[in-house]
Amino acid sequence: MRPEKPIGIFDSGLGGLTVVREIRRQLPGEDIVYLGDTARVPYGTKSKEAIERFATEDVEFLRRHEVKLAVVACGTASSVALSLLLEESQDVPILDVFRPGVRAAVRTTKTNRIGVIGTTATVGSGRFEEAIQRNGHRVIRSVACPLFVPLVEEGLYEGEIADKVAEMYLGPLKEEVDTLVLACTHYPLLKGTIRKAMGPSVRLVDPAQETAKETQEYLLSHDAVNPTDQRGRVELFLTDLPPHYRDLIELFLGEMPDRIERVEI
Amino acid sequence: MRPEKPIGIFDSGLGGLTVVREIRRQLPGEDIVYLGDTARVPYGTKSKEAIERFATEDVEFLRRHEVKLAVVACGTASSVALSLLLEESQDVPILDVFRPGVRAAVRTTKTNRIGVIGTTATVGSGRFEEAIQRNGHRVIRSVACPLFVPLVEEGLYEGEIADKVAEMYLGPLKEEVDTLVLACTHYPLLKGTIRKAMGPSVRLVDPAQETAKETQEYLLSHDAVNPTDQRGRVELFLTDLPPHYRDLIELFLGEMPDRIERVEI
Repeated sequence: MRPEKPIGIFDSGLGGLTVVREIRRQLPGEDIVYLGDTARVPYGTKSKEAIERFATEDVEFLRRHEVKLAVVACGTASSVALSLLLEESQDVPILDVFRPGVRAAVRTTKTNRIGVIGTTATVGSGRFEEAIQRNGHRVIRSVACPLFVPLVEEGLYEGEIADKVAEMYLGPLKEEVDTLVLACTHYPLLKGTIRKAMGPSVRLVDPAQETAKETQEYLLSHDAVNPTDQRGRVELFLTDLPPHYRDLIELFLGEMPDRIERVEI
Repeated sequence: MRPEKPIGIFDSGLGGLTVVREIRRQLPGEDIVYLGDTARVPYGTKSKEAIERFATEDVEFLRRHEVKLAVVACGTASSVALSLLLEESQDVPILDVFRPGVRAAVRTTKTNRIGVIGTTATVGSGRFEEAIQRNGHRVIRSVACPLFVPLVEEGLYEGEIADKVAEMYLGPLKEEVDTLVLACTHYPLLKGTIRKAMGPSVRLVDPAQETAKETQEYLLSHDAVNPTDQRGRVELFLTDLPPHYRDLIELFLGEMPDRIERVEI
């Protein structure tokens, strides 16, 4: 693994930039190549077969850009397509948001009562339950929150409507868990709303933060941290440039990237 | 135009089945070939370029199925990509939901105050305003309602959350228009909610109904109504079979089709 090569990251859309933001915080020298499949977003309402096909094409795109590491920053692709990506990946190591989320949940819970929220596909896959059970813990409940992504994308991540929607989804979880995994890259923007709905005693696990930590550990242990003391470049490749995409990039990334290019994959 | 050939209809997803339902009501003998681009749904949040490319591929698929007529049942594609589709269409006549919606709005208004609601792309295109102005009328306001589609797809087309969202979008329209065009195939399912938010004096124009009427008129005037007295077949071709697709098909179509097949386009 050549340290000066970029880290590759992909997501179904722009939400995965919350992962880039955390990685930049912890590894400021790394160059980032980010692929957002904005022409086919969202993945979370689609079939396993479609998600696997899209994710395979996404990794292939990153491989062509000679990344030293590919990070699956999409909660849906991480839950649904990870086994396939790991099987098919020969030369590029693959990290994801799913496994760090599981590990953090298991570390965090005190009462062995873990909840998971994500897209329809993530929750439908049952992968979180399986993985948490393998760690000797128990998912009490997993809940699909399909309106959360459109709420965030409309800028409605707080306020009366967000509160009502959060209440509808999270009401049944509230008294039952002590730890809640936010298994979708859009959800960190709803943290305030989710916290209000869940109450102050429930601990929220944000896989974006955990993934950034594990990326750092991985690079350190493989002697592959970029040795530069310059701030790394962020290059965004998007399969579509939808209306307001610049606003969404700034919302999720917290800065403007060095380059934005539309690509076909 | 050979009367025994099927009518081709496409939409970004399953919402366009509301148009099929109306066509079946008025033209029960017609065979229907429906393409739903469920792998790339929604179109309404994407760029003009992406929507034009997708819509061109969709029409090409219908042409390969030798339809006698192609109906664009997607509000977004009708508003954004219609000129291109008409320019490029050589052998297959193209109907859409946009022009019948405009004509019905112009016929319906008493006070020359028309409102339009649709997706971000539809409203952003400004095409409704232009077309209604060309007819000597005025769109007072057009409002993008991007949360309406996910609400319908989650089955939340009535209730407290739908009311709050409708109030947020429609509040500014309420006192200003006498006619409101529902320029998205999902919105007919929200009619009750929209009517509650708009009050009883505002007339709602449903382009699905108008499109079915115009399809019937077109076939009659071209001597191309299928002469059979049997009920026609409905064949669905979908680019993805997402979770719950059968429920959504039944919700929009009101019956189960004769065939459902996944295709790549």
